[in-house]
Amino acid sequence: MKPLLGGKGANLAEMTRIGLPVPPGFTITTEVCTHFYDNNRSYPASLQAEIEKGVANMERIMGTKFGDTEKMPLLVAVRSGARDSMPGMMDTILNLGLNDETVKALVRATKNERFAWDCYRRFIQMYGDVVMGVQKREGEDHDPFESVIEHYKDEKYGQHDIDDSKLAASDYQELVVRFKKLVKERTGRAFPNDPWDQLKGAAGAVFGSWMNDRAIVYRRKYNIPQDWGTAVNVQAMVYGNTGENSGSGVAFTRNPANGANEFYGEFLIDAQGEDVVAGVRTPQPVLELKKLMPKCYAELLKIRATLEKHFTDVQDVEFTIQDGKLFMLQTRNGKRTAMAALKFSMDMVKEKLIDWKTAILRNPADQFDQLLAPIFDRDDLAKAERAGRRVGYGLPAGPGAASGKIYLNANRAAAAAEKGEKVLLVRNETSPEDLRGMIAAEGILTAKGGVSSHAALVARQMGKVCICGASSVEIDYASKTVKASGWTFNEGDFLSIDGTSGFVYAGAIKTMPSEIVTGLLHGDTVAQATEKFVNFFRLMKWCSKVTRLDVRCNADNPEQTENALAFGAVGIGLTRTEHMFFEGDRIDAMREMIIFAGDYGEYRKKANDLKPDQTAQLAELKKEYAEAIAHFKDGLSKLLPMQRGDFIGIFKALKGYPATIRFLDPPLHEFLPHDAKSQAELAKKIGVPATKIARRVSQLNEVNPMLGHRGCRLGIAYPEITEMQARAVFEAAADVAKKKIKVKPEIMIPLVGFKKEFDLQEEIVRRVAKEVMSEKKVKFDYLVGTMIEVPRGALTADEVAKSAEFFSFGTNDLTQMALGISRDDMGNFLMPYVENEIFRRDPFATLDQTGVGQLMQIAVEKGRRSRANIKLGICGEHGGDPDSVKFCHRLGLDYVSCSPFRVPIARLAAAQAALGN
Amino acid sequence: MKPLLGGKGANLAEMTRIGLPVPPGFTITTEVCTHFYDNNRSYPASLQAEIEKGVANMERIMGTKFGDTEKMPLLVAVRSGARDSMPGMMDTILNLGLNDETVKALVRATKNERFAWDCYRRFIQMYGDVVMGVQKREGEDHDPFESVIEHYKDEKYGQHDIDDSKLAASDYQELVVRFKKLVKERTGRAFPNDPWDQLKGAAGAVFGSWMNDRAIVYRRKYNIPQDWGTAVNVQAMVYGNTGENSGSGVAFTRNPANGANEFYGEFLIDAQGEDVVAGVRTPQPVLELKKLMPKCYAELLKIRATLEKHFTDVQDVEFTIQDGKLFMLQTRNGKRTAMAALKFSMDMVKEKLIDWKTAILRNPADQFDQLLAPIFDRDDLAKAERAGRRVGYGLPAGPGAASGKIYLNANRAAAAAEKGEKVLLVRNETSPEDLRGMIAAEGILTAKGGVSSHAALVARQMGKVCICGASSVEIDYASKTVKASGWTFNEGDFLSIDGTSGFVYAGAIKTMPSEIVTGLLHGDTVAQATEKFVNFFRLMKWCSKVTRLDVRCNADNPEQTENALAFGAVGIGLTRTEHMFFEGDRIDAMREMIIFAGDYGEYRKKANDLKPDQTAQLAELKKEYAEAIAHFKDGLSKLLPMQRGDFIGIFKALKGYPATIRFLDPPLHEFLPHDAKSQAELAKKIGVPATKIARRVSQLNEVNPMLGHRGCRLGIAYPEITEMQARAVFEAAADVAKKKIKVKPEIMIPLVGFKKEFDLQEEIVRRVAKEVMSEKKVKFDYLVGTMIEVPRGALTADEVAKSAEFFSFGTNDLTQMALGISRDDMGNFLMPYVENEIFRRDPFATLDQTGVGQLMQIAVEKGRRSRANIKLGICGEHGGDPDSVKFCHRLGLDYVSCSPFRVPIARLAAAQAALGN
Repeated sequence: MKPLLGGKGANLAEMTRIGLPVPPGFTITTEVCTHFYDNNRSYPASLQAEIEKGVANMERIMGTKFGDTEKMPLLVAVRSGARDSMPGMMDTILNLGLNDETVKALVRATKNERFAWDCYRRFIQMYGDVVMGVQKREGEDHDPFESVIEHYKDEKYGQHDIDDSKLAASDYQELVVRFKKLVKERTGRAFPNDPWDQLKGAAGAVFGSWMNDRAIVYRRKYNIPQDWGTAVNVQAMVYGNTGENSGSGVAFTRNPANGANEFYGEFLIDAQGEDVVAGVRTPQPVLELKKLMPKCYAELLKIRATLEKHFTDVQDVEFTIQDGKLFMLQTRNGKRTAMAALKFSMDMVKEKLIDWKTAILRNPADQFDQLLAPIFDRDDLAKAERAGRRVGYGLPAGPGAASGKIYLNANRAAAAAEKGEKVLLVRNETSPEDLRGMIAAEGILTAKGGVSSHAALVARQMGKVCICGASSVEIDYASKTVKASGWTFNEGDFLSIDGTSGFVYAGAIKTMPSEIVTGLLHGDTVAQATEKFVNFFRLMKWCSKVTRLDVRCNADNPEQTENALAFGAVGIGLTRTEHMFFEGDRIDAMREMIIFAGDYGEYRKKANDLKPDQTAQLAELKKEYAEAIAHFKDGLSKLLPMQRGDFIGIFKALKGYPATIRFLDPPLHEFLPHDAKSQAELAKKIGVPATKIARRVSQLNEVNPMLGHRGCRLGIAYPEITEMQARAVFEAAADVAKKKIKVKPEIMIPLVGFKKEFDLQEEIVRRVAKEVMSEKKVKFDYLVGTMIEVPRGALTADEVAKSAEFFSFGTNDLTQMALGISRDDMGNFLMPYVENEIFRRDPFATLDQTGVGQLMQIAVEKGRRSRANIKLGICGEHGGDPDSVKFCHRLGLDYVSCSPFRVPIARLAAAQAALGN
Repeated sequence: MKPLLGGKGANLAEMTRIGLPVPPGFTITTEVCTHFYDNNRSYPASLQAEIEKGVANMERIMGTKFGDTEKMPLLVAVRSGARDSMPGMMDTILNLGLNDETVKALVRATKNERFAWDCYRRFIQMYGDVVMGVQKREGEDHDPFESVIEHYKDEKYGQHDIDDSKLAASDYQELVVRFKKLVKERTGRAFPNDPWDQLKGAAGAVFGSWMNDRAIVYRRKYNIPQDWGTAVNVQAMVYGNTGENSGSGVAFTRNPANGANEFYGEFLIDAQGEDVVAGVRTPQPVLELKKLMPKCYAELLKIRATLEKHFTDVQDVEFTIQDGKLFMLQTRNGKRTAMAALKFSMDMVKEKLIDWKTAILRNPADQFDQLLAPIFDRDDLAKAERAGRRVGYGLPAGPGAASGKIYLNANRAAAAAEKGEKVLLVRNETSPEDLRGMIAAEGILTAKGGVSSHAALVARQMGKVCICGASSVEIDYASKTVKASGWTFNEGDFLSIDGTSGFVYAGAIKTMPSEIVTGLLHGDTVAQATEKFVNFFRLMKWCSKVTRLDVRCNADNPEQTENALAFGAVGIGLTRTEHMFFEGDRIDAMREMIIFAGDYGEYRKKANDLKPDQTAQLAELKKEYAEAIAHFKDGLSKLLPMQRGDFIGIFKALKGYPATIRFLDPPLHEFLPHDAKSQAELAKKIGVPATKIARRVSQLNEVNPMLGHRGCRLGIAYPEITEMQARAVFEAAADVAKKKIKVKPEIMIPLVGFKKEFDLQEEIVRRVAKEVMSEKKVKFDYLVGTMIEVPRGALTADEVAKSAEFFSFGTNDLTQMALGISRDDMGNFLMPYVENEIFRRDPFATLDQTGVGQLMQIAVEKGRRSRANIKLGICGEHGGDPDSVKFCHRLGLDYVSCSPFRVPIARLAAAQAALGN
């Protein structure tokens, strides 16, 4: 019925249809609007009779009369009814039907003089504005009606900004006089007294507004046809403030906070709807109605059941009781917490209101990670909010709540944690050097960087609470202070952060682990706690039944892997091998290798400059660099057993699931110390002058490190690194395979833009695999594939797929390159970009389907053209974002990979996608 | 005939066909090879007779006998004849027909015992290797024949590395004995004595090599069918060293250095071809042959005419005279300088050998810029080369020769130039801060950066000589020294650089301006000088007749514009407005604007954080920042008249041609001083504390500035900048239009990735245009378009083209982003990338057609789909690279734009592309 009745009219009709006691009304259809414009703005002959019939019907149901000057008069609301609400269209005129006589009848009926006159003056104001066109003129600062009010306040009370609540009935009465005078002055016409004239005027204004400038512009922009026209809805007004037998309330058909199957809401006697939410009087729980108005309460309970049956979902309703008669003013799907959504959906399956597939769709995937994250104690949080301790906000980058003493330096944070302190690491941004501090901290707060910055990435992978890019937080490393909203915090002071909302609080707030996992701690009964736990895993199981897209995890160690597998991941989609190099003293071996790789590079450059016949010079060169090259290889051979050990742990934890292992990716300078003190320490450890370290650091310094010497470019410059990593992986695989545990290594070459890059690296990997299998006398399968993260890699995917056995989309970097935006630097222009809606959503959080998605589409098509069964996945941060997961499903990928704690989100989103959502 | 005779056989036949006296020969066709493999490696019955017939024919023509033991014997060369030469295939066996008897006849005939025995031992060595398979075995370090030689030298002379020239005839005689013994030992078979057996064996070896491993792998790789087979070419040997009536020579049919129409070459009496090039004896000019061997000389002159008529191009020939009889051994198109190519082509048109379109194709576009560049004095350069003064090399980034005192700092370079010194600016890399020094310098040498680095870009636009990325040059700013190849240079020492070859020389070398423009300075007669000049411009005119692609220039000022127009540019394709901000004291206004833009940004951030009702706080904030915002706007209004003046100059210089004007593009920090001293100076000038400057610099510091806050992101954050620039352009356009000079501004919004970005900027531009036209009461046309340089911009070109009236491909940045390679950082991994042939060519010099070209293709197609007549151009550095220009022609672009001095190259390449090359 929407085309004929418009959006609001149709809703009204629907509510009536399912038997809700809605205030009666009628609709002047869109056909009348079309007639109006087709016939030189005149109405069809039948209209008058129709309106009269409609009003008579309302009078009959309400038991009141339109224009009654004795008893409670029938007052109506007039609303435009385009199919969807539209800027520029007339909105609502309330209380239509009031005039100098009917207002007195309203006073009598409501026994509330002030209310009646306020209704009247509001009606004149609205009607005068939208129907009669009394609006701000050029050069005027204020709305003319508001000016009249201000003048009056000045006159009467000596100040124009006195609060409206101070005005009495007589004041409103006087304003009515002045408003009418204003209308006369501005329009030359008297304000219409006759309710029927008022009604016709309002309908005409609705039709007229269909053709005003703003509405025309809007329709043009959104391609809404002119000839749809608008309807006019006329509905009886009802009042909850006509005495002790009246009232208003808002309610949910179930508890929207915890999901309990109980009627939940509140009401006020002798009050209108806005009073309930305004908070001036304290409302009563809706259960109290049972005692006060048992008939109405019984009717409400019946309606509650009707609504849930009809909409098969929890409803949020508004109701008004006028003189003992219940009217439903609105119903809509109720907002809910993630916890409530889970319980609603599982209960409703049991109640056979919905089936299990619908239950999957009823859980909003983007909130799903809240279920597993630690949360603040509700009372303690409320206390902090009341005390104004919310001192800043940033991007919610790792969900959950954390509280701790702040430290501005990783080493000091780690030291404090060792002493048993709860610690928050607070930095402008983090780098791999901060890893120790991040591990030690409860949560991480950074002033710069986005949702895929280093801090966010690592935090999510570790399951740490994290807020990024809190630009209102000023960090001063020198004085070890943090400033926010006028507060100053010193190292060791407490802060609390909510990585779900992005809010930062001064002081400590109590935290508790996730309700799903530890319901008992939250005061649940055993039954309740068990139910939460079971609901969660039952939902996950249902997801697996429909899903086509596998979910893997990004994990760098056995612990993360086990976590992810527990949440249902079916393998690792990304192991960042470089993270392993930071642990313990292996960073020293790594640094040794990097320092002497510089000499090695120098040697090769010089050797390359020699002519083929300069054999003597070459020999000399070899001698000169022999020691340095030995050091370089030595560093690598120290790393080999460590890395092999890591992989053994991971393969065991995986229990036969596959692991995609990305070879060294970040630029080498990220591994080196940048301050003089640490450089001196390193120099001593590896026995070289400190100047050599400094020189190497400056040599590795890059203008745009994101586009510099990293990814497979490292392995091509230093094939020895690739060889070492391949050996570590395959030796580990061999060891574990011998223990009869299945292994499925998938070697991933990063940053491939040219097929030749891949081929060069693949050759090394396959050679080492062959060597190791022959040495260890064991066979296992493995794949060699690549990360598609350089636009050229996507564009030439047909070439690359001739060699690569799988593609994993590295959408973090692919987004940076396709959009030409450095995620680390985006903060400087993010604000105008969000304000101007250039980004609807952060492209590093939710995949830019138009641009980056197009490159993925090209790569998928071209890749499959060369290798029909190529394995396709995504391992960027988008793998844990519901909308991006759904896009990956539509693209036909085989799997998504995300950080362990986002695995449930991804599984839910993947299932929803499979169900066509 | 190639399929039947193979490549070499066909050439031989062709030379014979056009009447050249080539040594006689015959070919065993590929059909025999096919028969051989189809019939279990056996030969057709007819083969023996064919070979005998072929040999008889050779004997008849040469007047010698195969296997003659008395007189000069007929010796032959046997070569494989695949359609193209192929690795793994047998190459050449020379001197076949020698044995212990015929060698004596050769001694008698040549009267050169040493030569004859050397021929013999070489024959055994080659034959033993390729026919009999005496090759290095596993575990052997050396070729077995070479080992025999080394042993013999040790034995006889006590050292194994004595030079071959020290060996006498008797030594070779002994080696023949030992070689035969080696063959016997290794193969169990005696070396064949009978020339006929030798011949059959050689033919068999050729056929056999068709199926060896390397050849099979090669054919598989390049998709060459197995059944093509190979031919065997047998050709009579000729000797130029049989006495005073013999000789050898090499010659060009015209002078390949300056293009003069004269027979040009050299020869040696009683010598073989290799002696002429070896340089042991000094050859005589070929003209001398006229006196010494008039008959042969006359024949050569006739051949010269025949060749040019047949090939319609200058030939490079080898000839041998054996006993008074002339043999042509080879002819091929001669290599030539750009100058010679120009003269050749223009002369040949006059001689009606070729038409004017062919003349266009005969000029190699990639060398064409050499014609206009200054060059080193040839003698002076030769002196430097002889003295070993070539001390390094880098990427040739701005063609031409320059010599000057080196300065390592722009200010010192500028100061020295003011004192009248010739100056070279030597830096690790340049930035806009170095602009003054670059203007002052004769040439620029950088140790880092590629062919599209800042230094290269600016140098080319100014027409300066430039070498980039000379990584062997070590620059120490602190000690003001430059080290290269063991030399150390202090500031003020002379260096000379050749931006065409990329070579760096110690000391001064005399330079001269381009021959084309100043032939007289180079010793030309007036007629010669005129001819060069006229030839150049006539060729350019011919180019215009066929070309479809317009050529515009990248120019930032009237002078560059005039230069480019003189070379035939038809407008400006890229004006980088930011270059204008560095001149004179306008940088101060720019810096003032940038410093206070920081406060302005802060203000907006704080205002944005306020709630809508915090009006008092907003007012306070406004007051607090009022002064800073005024400063920001003040900076802009100082820049307005300066920039307007620039555009007036450019519009006037353009004489009605269009100008594409790119709005502010680089990140703002590039405009700020980075050292404390300059920061202090600036602080004083604009009246703020120096710490404020430092803070702003650090605030603007970015991790990846290429992907940071730049391009249209600046205009979106600070719409006032866009407004100022639009006003400057349009006010200038209005002023010039009033003087009845046509203006065609094309405003280009940089770095667009989202249509909305473009729309926001376009709105400002169009509003200002309207305002200015109404203020100035004048009308002119203008376009608003965008640079396509972000992959997303290309991928969503259909969207962008709904608003943008033109696209200009910014292929520098598009290459960086599509390949994920920062051109400034590429140096760190360039070497392994070139060595491994990942890049065939530097993608910043020659467009990566597969990757970047694909994005361009997508953008062209999508752009035209939304706007059929969209104007398309390219303004990246590739616009001056011949292959890239040809690609742009094929893509169907409307124009290319390049630096002024590359306009002729681009025009030539565009014409060649139009001619289908």
